[in-house]
Amino acid sequence: MNKKVSLKDIAEAAGVSTALVSYVLNGKEEEARVGKDTALRIREMAKKMNYQPNQIAKSLKSGKSQTIGLLVADISNPFFGNLARAIEDEAKKRGYTVLFGSSDENLEKSQRLIDTFINRQIDGFIIAPAEGTASQLENLKAAHIPFVLIDRYFKDLETSYIVVDNFKATYQATQQLLQQGHHKIAYVCYKNKLQHTEDRYHGYVQALRDQGINDDENLVFEVEYNSPTDFRKRFIDLLHPDRGVEAILFSTNTLSIMGLKIINELDFAIPEDIAVFCFDQSESYDLFYCPISYVRQPLGEIGKEAVRVLLEQLHAKKPGEQQVMLDAEIIARKSCEKIKK
Amino acid sequence: MNKKVSLKDIAEAAGVSTALVSYVLNGKEEEARVGKDTALRIREMAKKMNYQPNQIAKSLKSGKSQTIGLLVADISNPFFGNLARAIEDEAKKRGYTVLFGSSDENLEKSQRLIDTFINRQIDGFIIAPAEGTASQLENLKAAHIPFVLIDRYFKDLETSYIVVDNFKATYQATQQLLQQGHHKIAYVCYKNKLQHTEDRYHGYVQALRDQGINDDENLVFEVEYNSPTDFRKRFIDLLHPDRGVEAILFSTNTLSIMGLKIINELDFAIPEDIAVFCFDQSESYDLFYCPISYVRQPLGEIGKEAVRVLLEQLHAKKPGEQQVMLDAEIIARKSCEKIKK
Repeated sequence: MNKKVSLKDIAEAAGVSTALVSYVLNGKEEEARVGKDTALRIREMAKKMNYQPNQIAKSLKSGKSQTIGLLVADISNPFFGNLARAIEDEAKKRGYTVLFGSSDENLEKSQRLIDTFINRQIDGFIIAPAEGTASQLENLKAAHIPFVLIDRYFKDLETSYIVVDNFKATYQATQQLLQQGHHKIAYVCYKNKLQHTEDRYHGYVQALRDQGINDDENLVFEVEYNSPTDFRKRFIDLLHPDRGVEAILFSTNTLSIMGLKIINELDFAIPEDIAVFCFDQSESYDLFYCPISYVRQPLGEIGKEAVRVLLEQLHAKKPGEQQVMLDAEIIARKSCEKIKK
Repeated sequence: MNKKVSLKDIAEAAGVSTALVSYVLNGKEEEARVGKDTALRIREMAKKMNYQPNQIAKSLKSGKSQTIGLLVADISNPFFGNLARAIEDEAKKRGYTVLFGSSDENLEKSQRLIDTFINRQIDGFIIAPAEGTASQLENLKAAHIPFVLIDRYFKDLETSYIVVDNFKATYQATQQLLQQGHHKIAYVCYKNKLQHTEDRYHGYVQALRDQGINDDENLVFEVEYNSPTDFRKRFIDLLHPDRGVEAILFSTNTLSIMGLKIINELDFAIPEDIAVFCFDQSESYDLFYCPISYVRQPLGEIGKEAVRVLLEQLHAKKPGEQQVMLDAEIIARKSCEKIKK
């Protein structure tokens, strides 16, 4: 951007004063009584030199940029890629442009992206927040910058959010496994304090308790984010026949894929050797030899609602916070069945 | 952003002049001989009110923002999600922040995103260009805005680009199928005039010719972007036993996934009924009942090179264009074998 064409450059090339160029390109030629031929010459020169009017200065004045900043937790995760696409399609219908950033579940990167977006005059944010970023969101609130959370929210922080009913989702998935006759159901989740992680865990536990089954901590498999080697070692241990695990409920798409790969490597047949219930969409679920059961999040609806709530805040129709909780869909297929070999 | 805290707001709250606030917050208190207590009071008030210094005005002056704009063709495509992550990881190491936009293969959206990024003072672009955007790139060139193309390039437009040797990739994949003893090899591709589409097609044709096989236009299956119904109908026809197709080479990941789903639905066994060779990575390739053969693009290296070339242009070490062509890796597995039933 170092060689951006300036009004002065155009003035020199056209052999007129910089002031004259400014009058013409800002539509004030009549006021300033610039001759028609001169105005035309200036316009043609600006076009020829590919002059870009400085929109930032303009947007600084108007305070509106028709741009939404979307902060996701990891852009290489297809869940966020598809959600980003849904938000973008909806924003486009409403005349808004979406710029993305990916925090990669990293606190510092999240703050840096928020700053970068603010400094680039976006109108508001849609954020899938990383763990521990509540204080960053508090600052946004204090600065009266409109934002809507998606996928995740913080219990102690009053904000707008669009999430699915995660408790209900894992409750119903666990119910499906129980109804098939599975009793020893393992639960695979990330180790973090995010609200949706806790909600999903409690849904699993409650479904067991409602059937008179006490939750067994040996069946709850918590794994650190981004530690595939640790996952592998412990997951193979979880599958050991001595443990007698009959079914596994995975609580995210990345955990589902990692688990399915290891189940395949060990040549366990699904559902004969082990039944599985996965979470979120993946193109793999349809291509697997046995149709995979999964909790389907309504990505299109989440995107639509997120844009709607944000624009209502921007246009101050409803400046207050709005919380939307959508139902996930339970897709029960062959992978969750109880089939004796 | 409409209630952004101004210097004047802080001045009023602290009971001092706006000029005094400006001196203190711009670190000129000594020059302006502001008392220490007053300076402290102003700083605390600014913090309390969550004052955000106007970085845009600063970046307008310095002309540097340490930000890269990344324009991909479709963010919901895992290929671009993973590539975006690779670029981001590399940019972060170099102290740059990446903002993304997705053109969704749409001309108008591509132009709008380019404008949005320019107006937000990014330092330069990394672009996977949509079809027909050559003139948009010409304008960027004319305006001396640094950019590097990835994945795709235009033959008639001299720019920096990082791509894989697509001709070689499909040449070698076709060779693998030929060496297995397949002769009737169908080729599935999108119908467009993008250079990488043509290069991949020519690689397939050349490999056949080098084995004395004439390319048969009945075996070349061209499909419009975003038309799954048309794809389905014609792909089922392609698989009709009368056609005698022995193997299929898919030229993108999205085409591969669509094709595999239909092959599964029709209960064709891979490789017994039909052999396949796919393109690009997908988590499905490892989870499929038969390990899928595919052309693996070196995403990490593409990301690294794209950032390197862009930063060299930005820092004017090498202001000229640089073209990098990387080798794809040919992963030949069971899906391409010739196995008689």
